[in-house]
Amino acid sequence: MKNNLDELFHPRSIAIVGVSNSTTGLLASRFFVKPLIDFGFGGKIYPVHPKEKELLGLKVFPSITDIPGPVDYVISAIPSHKAPQLMEECIARGVKLISFYTAGFSESDDNEGQKLEATLLEIACRGNIRILGPNCMGIYCPESGISFDSAFPKESGQVALISQSGGVAFYIGREAISRGVSFSKIVSYGNASDINETELLQYLAQDDETKVIAAYIEGIKEGRKFLQALREATTVKPVIVLKGGSTEAGTRGVLSHTASLAGADITWEAAFNQAGALRVFNPEELIDMIVASSHPYPEGKRVAIIGFGGGASVQAADECEKAGLSVPPIPQTVKKQLGKLALVPGSIFKNPIDMVGNFANPEELSQTIQIIAGWEEVDFLLPHLILGVAGFGYEDLKLHVSVLQQMINIAKTLNKPVIFVLDSTSSPVWQKEAFHARQECLAAGFPVYPSMKQAAQAISRIQSLSKSTSSDNR
Amino acid sequence: MKNNLDELFHPRSIAIVGVSNSTTGLLASRFFVKPLIDFGFGGKIYPVHPKEKELLGLKVFPSITDIPGPVDYVISAIPSHKAPQLMEECIARGVKLISFYTAGFSESDDNEGQKLEATLLEIACRGNIRILGPNCMGIYCPESGISFDSAFPKESGQVALISQSGGVAFYIGREAISRGVSFSKIVSYGNASDINETELLQYLAQDDETKVIAAYIEGIKEGRKFLQALREATTVKPVIVLKGGSTEAGTRGVLSHTASLAGADITWEAAFNQAGALRVFNPEELIDMIVASSHPYPEGKRVAIIGFGGGASVQAADECEKAGLSVPPIPQTVKKQLGKLALVPGSIFKNPIDMVGNFANPEELSQTIQIIAGWEEVDFLLPHLILGVAGFGYEDLKLHVSVLQQMINIAKTLNKPVIFVLDSTSSPVWQKEAFHARQECLAAGFPVYPSMKQAAQAISRIQSLSKSTSSDNR
Repeated sequence: MKNNLDELFHPRSIAIVGVSNSTTGLLASRFFVKPLIDFGFGGKIYPVHPKEKELLGLKVFPSITDIPGPVDYVISAIPSHKAPQLMEECIARGVKLISFYTAGFSESDDNEGQKLEATLLEIACRGNIRILGPNCMGIYCPESGISFDSAFPKESGQVALISQSGGVAFYIGREAISRGVSFSKIVSYGNASDINETELLQYLAQDDETKVIAAYIEGIKEGRKFLQALREATTVKPVIVLKGGSTEAGTRGVLSHTASLAGADITWEAAFNQAGALRVFNPEELIDMIVASSHPYPEGKRVAIIGFGGGASVQAADECEKAGLSVPPIPQTVKKQLGKLALVPGSIFKNPIDMVGNFANPEELSQTIQIIAGWEEVDFLLPHLILGVAGFGYEDLKLHVSVLQQMINIAKTLNKPVIFVLDSTSSPVWQKEAFHARQECLAAGFPVYPSMKQAAQAISRIQSLSKSTSSDNR
Repeated sequence: MKNNLDELFHPRSIAIVGVSNSTTGLLASRFFVKPLIDFGFGGKIYPVHPKEKELLGLKVFPSITDIPGPVDYVISAIPSHKAPQLMEECIARGVKLISFYTAGFSESDDNEGQKLEATLLEIACRGNIRILGPNCMGIYCPESGISFDSAFPKESGQVALISQSGGVAFYIGREAISRGVSFSKIVSYGNASDINETELLQYLAQDDETKVIAAYIEGIKEGRKFLQALREATTVKPVIVLKGGSTEAGTRGVLSHTASLAGADITWEAAFNQAGALRVFNPEELIDMIVASSHPYPEGKRVAIIGFGGGASVQAADECEKAGLSVPPIPQTVKKQLGKLALVPGSIFKNPIDMVGNFANPEELSQTIQIIAGWEEVDFLLPHLILGVAGFGYEDLKLHVSVLQQMINIAKTLNKPVIFVLDSTSSPVWQKEAFHARQECLAAGFPVYPSMKQAAQAISRIQSLSKSTSSDNR
């Protein structure tokens, strides 16, 4: 049975209250009105403001009451003290869901905000209306044409993200998208006064559009219910959890940010493990695990590293083994095959395979990769390029592009997973090049990690998931 | 007493053997001839090749023997089997140091390479000539106008780097430079057949130009002597060590790369600690510790974090406390002062201080930072900007620049250390912006870290150094 959140993600009409052409109102309209237009939201869009007549080409209504048709979803950007009055108007109009962008509720330092939030909840229960937030960005659901960021993609994907923080939702959303991830839903749910992490998790576990669930959670309202929901969710799809507030100062921050009680970290650590969730410790790890869980997992932990540079290869081997992967030595049979190729001195055939001197030699590169792919005792290939390191023609942009294209072409023909690591120096020229190189790999369907350490940790961890819960796009 | 390496860094003339206008010879000339011209090396430059007449505007000599004047330093890029003959010629000409770029010695799979390296060493002892490498990039010493990378700066700095890997020397050199570090010397010393890590460390400990020593070491030739030298060096300046080959696969890589025995990791861990060295585990950490040790250290571990975004602030607090820093709560007295400012709802005054809504309000921002700097119970300020996260005008490039400039201007007036964290999304536009923002901070003399985690770990670790060994540029 689907819970009733599904219809909240598919409203027929949306009213946005408190948007205007002035500075503060403009910000809200950029978040909540413009994306609806950009995404081609199929239902009605009603901006609401007492004085404005027109906004972004849309008619503005003086109040909710003045809107002619039914209103399913209301986004509020008005000051917190006006929220109860708005709630009453919403109930009168049969609104199903109201999302409060505005802060100034239970997360604030004074008692007033807390009382106000309690009042909203009381009104919501009485009037049979659901609250998202307050203090949140609300919903991104490309299937419905709803977004709070015009830069998010219009295509629907397989990953759902719930985030108590709006900033973290923006950050993870944008970063994951640049790593090739598409989302079914992103929900920024703020103070979680009504709709909370448990209900969202239950909904997403049942949601057919969602194959992987990621969560940034600051505090958990109903511990037992949440863990029960988590246990159930992890039996059907991977769940990755980033828990904000794992230290004293972080916990204090959580209280001020979303009025949540972070709880003792050691308790959560054990609970997440028992429930079968993958726990991560920062947004970058969360994105890495989303990437890992959205691609076919290697069958095992044995990796062949194909690198460019002796020192970098040593580092790569260290990172892989430290992360729990196995980097087996190349057997004599494979070495013999490699020995027949015309590779320059300085090439190392030990795993990592160091191809540094053959960088400009695509034919030898292809053959090397094919031989390594035929080596039965490894489960996947990990080619590693560091863009912008001097030497061996590394500084020739065109050469980089052709080497990478060559590697992608060979990778496509192999029947072993190939996972790319594309690193670069921090020069803007090479970062840009690395960004485009990444897009090439992603377009060809290969996962990409920005460092060997991140790749090794993510691939090692993803193996702990049972095959049954892996994403369908294997 | 200075050991005799000093004159090796200050040769009167350099001959580069095996450079030509053909493809392979061109690579060597790009590494070893062009930089000497670009850096305005004050002595004579003699390219050597049996057939070439002219290279990069310089006269080419058929052999070392044909060079008219004295030759102090020879760089060899000829195939390894021709090296012994070259050595003999060098001895006849009174050469003091020869550096072998070429691979194919003891790091190679066959016995021939090992024999060859032993032969070179025997000739060197007999002929009173020193060998750098083989299998190395040699010397960067801007004071002498010597470099193997034209992109390295011409100005001398206070950090010395020794690296067994040429690629790692390039990578760390370029990355550290983009983080505001300048080097006194970089030495890529490869297989360390003659001049090894111990002798280099002894030299750099005595070198007045060098205030901080960083090392990438794959294997240590003379364990006891090295640890003795390390102990002595750490009493006079900070020494940061990255040990390549800390796992089984990494150790195997080390053997193939520079023919070094990596040794048991647990032994080195203890030894480095006892000798007072800072051990790091990847090139990024090495650069972070160079940055931390090249700037005045905060007096203690108590930090005030000034961030932009509630979720990011929670993460920042977690990273700082996990790294061992202390993030004390803001006392009532300071809160009262902050309360007088006209800050928008959603601002959080708990430490981290979340200024998200006041981003476009430079006056409030200035005053907030000044009040926080006056708070006696913190040792340093850690402003944190994530470039490219949507919302609050974050996407306005000009606004970013003005906010950052404002923060730099205020930071200059404070008598507490200010350390910037400049993060960005991975979009090329924002990475470029973050790069330029970083240069602004560096130009004003402030250290910058690319993530809160890196900043927290580096600052926490640097406190373990006694004040006496800190860099002179405090």
